[in-house]
Amino acid sequence: VADAPESRSRRVALDAMGGDDAPASTVAGALRARADGVEVVLVGDAQRLSAALVRAGQPDALEIVHAGEVIAMDDDPALALRSKRDASIRVAADLVASGDAGALVSAGSTGATLAASLFAFGRIRGVRRPAVAAVIPTAGGPGAEVILVDAGGTSDVQPEALVTYAHMGSAYARVRGVTSPRVGLVNVGEEPGKGNALAKAAFELLSEVEGFIGNVEPAVVLGGDVDVAVTDGFTGNVLLKTVEVLRHDPEDPGAGAAVLLGCTGTVLVAHGAATPQELAAALRTARDAAAGNLATRIAERLAAMDDTGGDGGTDEEDTSG
Amino acid sequence: VADAPESRSRRVALDAMGGDDAPASTVAGALRARADGVEVVLVGDAQRLSAALVRAGQPDALEIVHAGEVIAMDDDPALALRSKRDASIRVAADLVASGDAGALVSAGSTGATLAASLFAFGRIRGVRRPAVAAVIPTAGGPGAEVILVDAGGTSDVQPEALVTYAHMGSAYARVRGVTSPRVGLVNVGEEPGKGNALAKAAFELLSEVEGFIGNVEPAVVLGGDVDVAVTDGFTGNVLLKTVEVLRHDPEDPGAGAAVLLGCTGTVLVAHGAATPQELAAALRTARDAAAGNLATRIAERLAAMDDTGGDGGTDEEDTSG
Repeated sequence: VADAPESRSRRVALDAMGGDDAPASTVAGALRARADGVEVVLVGDAQRLSAALVRAGQPDALEIVHAGEVIAMDDDPALALRSKRDASIRVAADLVASGDAGALVSAGSTGATLAASLFAFGRIRGVRRPAVAAVIPTAGGPGAEVILVDAGGTSDVQPEALVTYAHMGSAYARVRGVTSPRVGLVNVGEEPGKGNALAKAAFELLSEVEGFIGNVEPAVVLGGDVDVAVTDGFTGNVLLKTVEVLRHDPEDPGAGAAVLLGCTGTVLVAHGAATPQELAAALRTARDAAAGNLATRIAERLAAMDDTGGDGGTDEEDTSG
Repeated sequence: VADAPESRSRRVALDAMGGDDAPASTVAGALRARADGVEVVLVGDAQRLSAALVRAGQPDALEIVHAGEVIAMDDDPALALRSKRDASIRVAADLVASGDAGALVSAGSTGATLAASLFAFGRIRGVRRPAVAAVIPTAGGPGAEVILVDAGGTSDVQPEALVTYAHMGSAYARVRGVTSPRVGLVNVGEEPGKGNALAKAAFELLSEVEGFIGNVEPAVVLGGDVDVAVTDGFTGNVLLKTVEVLRHDPEDPGAGAAVLLGCTGTVLVAHGAATPQELAAALRTARDAAAGNLATRIAERLAAMDDTGGDGGTDEEDTSG
């Protein structure tokens, strides 16, 4: 994992063609983020992006990198990625691979974003499949948050994967300023031995992980007494979406975007329906994660874990979503 | 499945010793329910229950059936049930078995309540294990609600179980006044083929079920566009508890209690921390479910389904929780 030189690594490549209302929403989000000091590179149809900037009254505010194709939400990610060599998500991922940007943000297809990232700069050693990390505000006070991993990446996993999620989530929590992250296993009860077969097996393995505090019910996850909550991508996605339905708050720092943990680069996926405000927040989060060398931190942590037995990630299953 | 004679079947047996603050909370809840016209029978330590009624200023308001023992929350349900023959939950379940009451409510151990119910009056034919049905208010307008099955009964199940849940949930929805219940499968996306292995397999089987509308994300579950949402007990419990954390509303008709579907009697389990108001709501729900002949409706529906292939419930696994 090589971090890009300081100046370029501060830039965030935005797939400006991804999202329900792109490029209007993405350009508006990028302009907001720029006002907050984030250097954004717009990737997509140069003519349309220029026109959107003109309409916004800021024709020269942002750098544009042209990409002539777009991967649609209903395209097969792996197929589309191969056939559309000039797709915006692919060109944006290449900017990160070449070090011309430090992070990637897309509100397009999560599958295509993951596939493009894996294709352009690959996975961290020890990671079988990247996981989605969602940052959810908690009742633990101002700024308090919990990182939910996996919030929607892989539905069926082995217990070992949750150990990787714990390490990756901890590394992310540290980058976000938590000194000694507490890690919990999402479960239906607090006592050891609770839950389904996956949770029971994962509990045993997680007991060896630094900072593991045991099973956590939703009240604890959302109550501020844990920093990282790990679960399979099915349960995590149901939990995340339930929270989003009941507590949609445009001021949420993490609303509308999640980090893909396990790529050798910083990648954020935003909702297709993300607002300019949410996209701006995602761009800030991406900038900060890259500045904190998130991928390097995860790689270091998993390398240390590998010495004591990792999840033995292989090179299979590279591109799907 | 025999429904008790009308007069006695209207009575609800309350395990007055179950719950964090029992018997104070249970007696207070029973008195509230009585004010709403529910005939409650208090089951538990007669001396303590009489004293609680005296303290409430209504010494003769409720019938008491004595039971000298209590099953604690941390007791093993099956073991405790066998050794404590005079446990309040057991005596209360026996009242339903003998037809002296039409329904059972307990805020004690769910496992013990399930075990006592199975021991006293058993399962409906075609049901491998009873499921927990939680009624959750939705955004579908005043009184709109969704029945979530399984909301916490069995964590690891076969896809066939979700078909049984769909039929039981539909029967319950009809008892609650829904003419043509819409049934959805809780999932992380709406398209067929989404989800984990269980959801994918269940989707195929559910396609044959009357009223099945497909996959439903949390936004649909809570949005009022489905009447019954089926899932495994692990996912369902995480979803339910997340809703409870974020939307605790003492006016919720279903808050604090859930029905055990699949017993040949009407059984409600309430939270250990249920308030008197919530216990009163649970007692009303129990009265109404019994009056609607819930168990008979479920048995009829599963019998009809059995002709076309049920989940082949066996007589194993009778008592655990």
